[in-house]
Amino acid sequence: MLVPELRERVYKANMELPEHGLVKFTWGNVSAIDREKGLIAIKPSGVAYEKLSPENMVVTDLDGNIVEGDLNPSSDLPTHVELYKAFPEVGGIVHTHSTESVAWAQAGRDIPCYGTTHADTFYGAIPCARALTTEEINGEYEKETGKVIIEEFAKRGLDPLAVAGVTVRNHGPFAWGKDEKSAVYNAVVLEEAARMARYTEAINPTVAEVPQALKDKHYLRKHGKNAYYGQKK
Amino acid sequence: MLVPELRERVYKANMELPEHGLVKFTWGNVSAIDREKGLIAIKPSGVAYEKLSPENMVVTDLDGNIVEGDLNPSSDLPTHVELYKAFPEVGGIVHTHSTESVAWAQAGRDIPCYGTTHADTFYGAIPCARALTTEEINGEYEKETGKVIIEEFAKRGLDPLAVAGVTVRNHGPFAWGKDEKSAVYNAVVLEEAARMARYTEAINPTVAEVPQALKDKHYLRKHGKNAYYGQKK
Amino acid sequence: MLVPELRERVYKANMELPEHGLVKFTWGNVSAIDREKGLIAIKPSGVAYEKLSPENMVVTDLDGNIVEGDLNPSSDLPTHVELYKAFPEVGGIVHTHSTESVAWAQAGRDIPCYGTTHADTFYGAIPCARALTTEEINGEYEKETGKVIIEEFAKRGLDPLAVAGVTVRNHGPFAWGKDEKSAVYNAVVLEEAARMARYTEAINPTVAEVPQALKDKHYLRKHGKNAYYGQKK
Amino acid sequence: MLVPELRERVYKANMELPEHGLVKFTWGNVSAIDREKGLIAIKPSGVAYEKLSPENMVVTDLDGNIVEGDLNPSSDLPTHVELYKAFPEVGGIVHTHSTESVAWAQAGRDIPCYGTTHADTFYGAIPCARALTTEEINGEYEKETGKVIIEEFAKRGLDPLAVAGVTVRNHGPFAWGKDEKSAVYNAVVLEEAARMARYTEAINPTVAEVPQALKDKHYLRKHGKNAYYGQKK
Repeated sequence: MLVPELRERVYKANMELPEHGLVKFTWGNVSAIDREKGLIAIKPSGVAYEKLSPENMVVTDLDGNIVEGDLNPSSDLPTHVELYKAFPEVGGIVHTHSTESVAWAQAGRDIPCYGTTHADTFYGAIPCARALTTEEINGEYEKETGKVIIEEFAKRGLDPLAVAGVTVRNHGPFAWGKDEKSAVYNAVVLEEAARMARYTEAINPTVAEVPQALKDKHYLRKHGKNAYYGQKK
Repeated sequence: MLVPELRERVYKANMELPEHGLVKFTWGNVSAIDREKGLIAIKPSGVAYEKLSPENMVVTDLDGNIVEGDLNPSSDLPTHVELYKAFPEVGGIVHTHSTESVAWAQAGRDIPCYGTTHADTFYGAIPCARALTTEEINGEYEKETGKVIIEEFAKRGLDPLAVAGVTVRNHGPFAWGKDEKSAVYNAVVLEEAARMARYTEAINPTVAEVPQALKDKHYLRKHGKNAYYGQKK
Repeated sequence: MLVPELRERVYKANMELPEHGLVKFTWGNVSAIDREKGLIAIKPSGVAYEKLSPENMVVTDLDGNIVEGDLNPSSDLPTHVELYKAFPEVGGIVHTHSTESVAWAQAGRDIPCYGTTHADTFYGAIPCARALTTEEINGEYEKETGKVIIEEFAKRGLDPLAVAGVTVRNHGPFAWGKDEKSAVYNAVVLEEAARMARYTEAINPTVAEVPQALKDKHYLRKHGKNAYYGQKK
Repeated sequence: MLVPELRERVYKANMELPEHGLVKFTWGNVSAIDREKGLIAIKPSGVAYEKLSPENMVVTDLDGNIVEGDLNPSSDLPTHVELYKAFPEVGGIVHTHSTESVAWAQAGRDIPCYGTTHADTFYGAIPCARALTTEEINGEYEKETGKVIIEEFAKRGLDPLAVAGVTVRNHGPFAWGKDEKSAVYNAVVLEEAARMARYTEAINPTVAEVPQALKDKHYLRKHGKNAYYGQKK
């Protein structure tokens, strides 16, 4: 096999989704990329989690052509491909229909940064990318979904590793990271930040985002050269 | 036994309801029909899930007369019978009192199609059928429940396999499908779509349904001759 | 031992509370009464569920005096005693601080009958008994809690087996039944009806109770001489 | 080792946090203090719960200097240290990002005392301490967090064992107690009281706190020399 270690990592990351309560049935997928070899491994489409194995992950090139594997790749592959092309620092991507994140996507609102749980991982609000146009929906839908995300990040001038997630209007969340492991972590935090924000607004409908100083503090204590959370590596 | 394989399938489908968190106590039932033989298998009434077996499913004819079995069938059998008679494509039916779906039934509102999770399975809003009249309540109540559902679908011109579920006002959800397995799947999606819709309106009280183009896209990518989700059969 | 079978039943019923998710820590208790012998068995106070056994249940007389047992009975015993005295048909009582029921108690509102899940078990709204006065709080508090419940049922002319539960303002739910088993069942339904009612009002803030004909139908199909739900006994 | 028994207790208390559903990933920490020896044991920073052991707890002095241990202590240690210095009766401290408590912290509101579940443990509203200033955020952040809590308790004249918890604006909950075990208990109650208060306001947006007499009754039946809940020690 071409990339047995990549298959193994992607398999494991996919199996974490149901453990974290992020998926029902087959509604989620994780991919990772080997940038040197130009190969992506991704979950096959519509296969139950209990039937997944490192061997049935699908390996494609950066244009989404199957290089190794008998099954169809996740139908969201073209979205992953667009993101890998546009965001060269990204090594892993997660898509789910997790309940709380979908609710913000359906509501069409950014998830505001209301506290340090959010700020420790996402540097500011988690954007809700615009709805696709009818032309985009009827064209290469999954590819256009990726393009809409990229457009949103470009328009807002966001660093995709500082805000490593998004919801797409009417659809649901995508999260990513330097590898598939951090992508899953970020997907879990996105869901929890979404839940906390919903509760927060119920308790105080006129609440404001946290001050910029707090966003800076919490993001930078976990990221970058002055990070001091956790153990020295 | 007349239909051992049907009993087995209906037993298994019933056991999936508590696994998916759709029932408390005995508040749910699944049936399936063998159209060729004209026989329905359904859960017995008020029997705990841990005591169910393929053998104690109740087999009836299309008028609801017991053909094989010592126990009373689910008291909702007459609703199932009406639906099987009116919807010839339907092979399995589920009724539960799952929390989120019941909330919409009690609120007396259709569940709007706010996103692709809903649109992948249900082609448009999930209708809330009207309340029964006093006469209907005091008459053949469970049979009238079925008739009210059929009336609602006729009035709206809905295809029962495109919108394979409903809530009945003041009562709760019914879902169905080409077989008992897809009926259970649809009942799970109905519950999740109901939950997501409640959250969505809490976050954005003036949210609108998704555009028609998105409904078309998502429903048709999973259903019909141009479906491309999952593996080729 | 005086009533080994009663101890066993009460022990088992207490153990069902955490299984149904109705209690945290030691916040709940079940009792049952042997009317012929005039003896009550109840959970000991503040003992963890994993340390309960039939042997450490506390047996008291109808005035709440310990007849058998080394431990203090639940501090809520005087409430149970008042209810047993006032409601001679009642054989078992449950008190918990289950989340959804407490929320209605804290909100100071009856739980409206919004649907058949509620109506199958409770014949109409589940009352919220008034808050205790300062004198009652500073007097025999737990006994006065029982009296307030009895006063509420008398004032409203309610049959305690038709509406086999209540919430006490600022406090939480009590449920009961002909025996401890039905009392636990009713406590679970009370909690679920409370949850469904909260969701229902979120979806439709101006929703009304179900019509009387539906209350009659659902209550009477499960209770009384014309009941037809379940298996013939 | 200096304080093997303290390490053991702190380890066990940390392991209770995920069991009670209060933490995701590594987002929580418990410490305890041996007042005689002037030593604190606390969870190491960013270490997964399944890798914790009594041996990898970090032991520090009352200025937060590591006395024994190879790992970095929780980054929240300076908050714990401030609280131990200011509240001499406190023997254990818990910090989490539990969802419901965080929501009140993010909403910037005290958790009102709406019922006896709250009143049994917390003597009145659970305060939301003010947001840190930009100077405090950019200074010794975690130490300042402790100071803000202490300031809040001083300003309100609160007894830290009568109200053994707080939320810090935009951040989350801290709870404490005479030892680490009661601190965990209080953190669980804080979370449940927060959940109940959210639900209560959804059901009745104009609800008021319970009367003072009820606060007195419930707190004092479990605390102080006239307590009568539970078994005599």
